[in-house]
Amino acid sequence: MIEQVRVVLIAPRNPLNIGAAARAMSNFGFTQLRLVNPYAVAFREARSAVNAGAILQGAREYATVADAIADCTLVVGTTAGTHRELQHPLYRLEYGGRLMRKHSGRIALLFGSEKYGLSNEDMTYCHWLMRIPTREEHGSMNLGQSAAVCLYELIRTAPKVKPEPRKQATSEAVERLTKLLEDVLERAGYVHDESTEAKTRRLVRRMRISEHDAEIWAGMLRQILWKIGQG
Amino acid sequence: MIEQVRVVLIAPRNPLNIGAAARAMSNFGFTQLRLVNPYAVAFREARSAVNAGAILQGAREYATVADAIADCTLVVGTTAGTHRELQHPLYRLEYGGRLMRKHSGRIALLFGSEKYGLSNEDMTYCHWLMRIPTREEHGSMNLGQSAAVCLYELIRTAPKVKPEPRKQATSEAVERLTKLLEDVLERAGYVHDESTEAKTRRLVRRMRISEHDAEIWAGMLRQILWKIGQG
Repeated sequence: MIEQVRVVLIAPRNPLNIGAAARAMSNFGFTQLRLVNPYAVAFREARSAVNAGAILQGAREYATVADAIADCTLVVGTTAGTHRELQHPLYRLEYGGRLMRKHSGRIALLFGSEKYGLSNEDMTYCHWLMRIPTREEHGSMNLGQSAAVCLYELIRTAPKVKPEPRKQATSEAVERLTKLLEDVLERAGYVHDESTEAKTRRLVRRMRISEHDAEIWAGMLRQILWKIGQG
Repeated sequence: MIEQVRVVLIAPRNPLNIGAAARAMSNFGFTQLRLVNPYAVAFREARSAVNAGAILQGAREYATVADAIADCTLVVGTTAGTHRELQHPLYRLEYGGRLMRKHSGRIALLFGSEKYGLSNEDMTYCHWLMRIPTREEHGSMNLGQSAAVCLYELIRTAPKVKPEPRKQATSEAVERLTKLLEDVLERAGYVHDESTEAKTRRLVRRMRISEHDAEIWAGMLRQILWKIGQG
């Protein structure tokens, strides 16, 4: 899927934004950057920046949107989507990303210029549009951030598998710890009756302690116990 | 959930990054920004930028991480997570975001300085760490982009409901269109036998055409039919 995507920046004017879009691509493993009619100075500056990588060096320049998307079978436009009557289906990024992942051919992902976004004419080349679910009151995102969020959505994986938890302490270890704590509390003169014992037991269990931490706590409590015995 | 989150930038040095983090917060509806020991000039510049909004004006400054997170019940650190032995559980953003959404108290979300990320000491204040699933070869993200991606994950909603499709054309309308196309092809002298008829029928059905577009096509074909009849 990553290899299928062409990131297309239309008429970008700020070298920092071009660089930021390229950086997000690199972070997430995308490689194919296309620029339509970029502001020449900006493109030159972005390319000559110290940290400009292979993506900017390999970026291709096109005179028109039609040229830039000619070899793609799906063309997706991004928009803040609040300012005009859209003639296209408009999906939230979460859903649009899913559609893109299902597509099997080359995909062009279009970002409009910093100031105006995609023009109505740019949009006529799109199969559909997608918007990042920003607040209505402040919908417009910075170009570099917008690219980062869209590309993240494309490589994001649903967290089906819970990451391996740290090895939990066995009940036996928890019980040993409980006894140790009770001993310490008793020797320390902490009020100790049956209700305290139950409270202590629950207290220790609520720690949901790992095997590793149980050992550390046991060591500490033994040391305290020894110290109290000394006194 | 959005109201629970405090975005904490630790020792940020670049006013553009501070501004970008604030902008992403505004885009996604987060309001509480905290800065630990920021580079004074950078904070001043970010605050006096033309587009600095309420978030930067209301941002609070702290001398230490401990002060900045004192009122929070969950502290989450962000890290590229490749350069050192981590003593903490490290989750991918997709899973960490889910844990954060489940938490019911105040949450501090920590971002380290642009150059060094979170220090080992900063991390000792964290319950766990999370990483954006970037490539190993280029893990480190720009601060503003990293903030945008993390906050997007927090407000992201699973696309359970398919967006309302455009009203599809009825079979009757599709059949009318098919007949029109057949008429045009026949009059135009396009090879016409039973197999062509079946092909045409399937062709039109594969358009999965909307009610609206079916009407437009019908109008076009009627015009073509009229023109052919004239000739």
